[in-house]
Amino acid sequence: MGQLDTSRQQGCELCVTEGGQLVVRTPKLRVIRVLDADHPGFYRVIWNDHAAEFTDLPTADRVHLMDVVAKVESLVREHLQPTKINLASLGNVVPHLHWHVIARYADDQHFPQPIWGAVQRADSKPAPEVLVALPDLDRAIAEAVAHLRT
Amino acid sequence: MGQLDTSRQQGCELCVTEGGQLVVRTPKLRVIRVLDADHPGFYRVIWNDHAAEFTDLPTADRVHLMDVVAKVESLVREHLQPTKINLASLGNVVPHLHWHVIARYADDQHFPQPIWGAVQRADSKPAPEVLVALPDLDRAIAEAVAHLRT
Repeated sequence: MGQLDTSRQQGCELCVTEGGQLVVRTPKLRVIRVLDADHPGFYRVIWNDHAAEFTDLPTADRVHLMDVVAKVESLVREHLQPTKINLASLGNVVPHLHWHVIARYADDQHFPQPIWGAVQRADSKPAPEVLVALPDLDRAIAEAVAHLRT
Repeated sequence: MGQLDTSRQQGCELCVTEGGQLVVRTPKLRVIRVLDADHPGFYRVIWNDHAAEFTDLPTADRVHLMDVVAKVESLVREHLQPTKINLASLGNVVPHLHWHVIARYADDQHFPQPIWGAVQRADSKPAPEVLVALPDLDRAIAEAVAHLRT
């Protein structure tokens, strides 16, 4: 079942937990789905070893990580047809390298603000077709990421 | 003097303006510094041609773009010693591919929130040594990015 993290930092949440609902795990990284009721098409690509910053990775790992981010983005676009994709690597709270890949919709609670910004329409609910599409999207991501070359 | 954008979209602000204080321009992209009084170590890497999403780029261009983002991140870390780097490609307001590279400090106005989140300490001002370091950092970024292979 995948591999243990080879580099762990004491007290780092992403060193000791999956960090969300696991979609796929490889020796280098994992993809999880964030269970966010307001933003359901929300994935994270999490580097398994502890690294704080993108440029802490060797170039080949950095390129591989972004290949996975791009693959997740492509599949989210194909399956969920969002208005926009938001990508971010922040890590202010948990400084363990992870990329957010978020499907955004023009009528979601925060659009056009980032999801960390002020709520624009508190009553907005995700479209049912987005929720229905998630299991197939999870499977497509798992399949694609498992077969990406490192 | 760089090159004109070869693909422009009517009404797109980043197709017709630099989008900030120009640091360096190459045939593919440009780096600008965002003049944000609260977050002075704030750069954007903007793709010259109009593309909305990261995965609208061919793979080689995508890899090159992230090489530039990583170079900017490395130099910001070296010159400004931030607490954390934040990277993001959002584009909800201006859907023309651009990456934010933001130096974050534990005592900045928004930390640990993203800069788009709620203000945590309204009175916080950037450290003078950060402001003083910016001209040298601009020059280092201009030099490095101009010499990166595409």
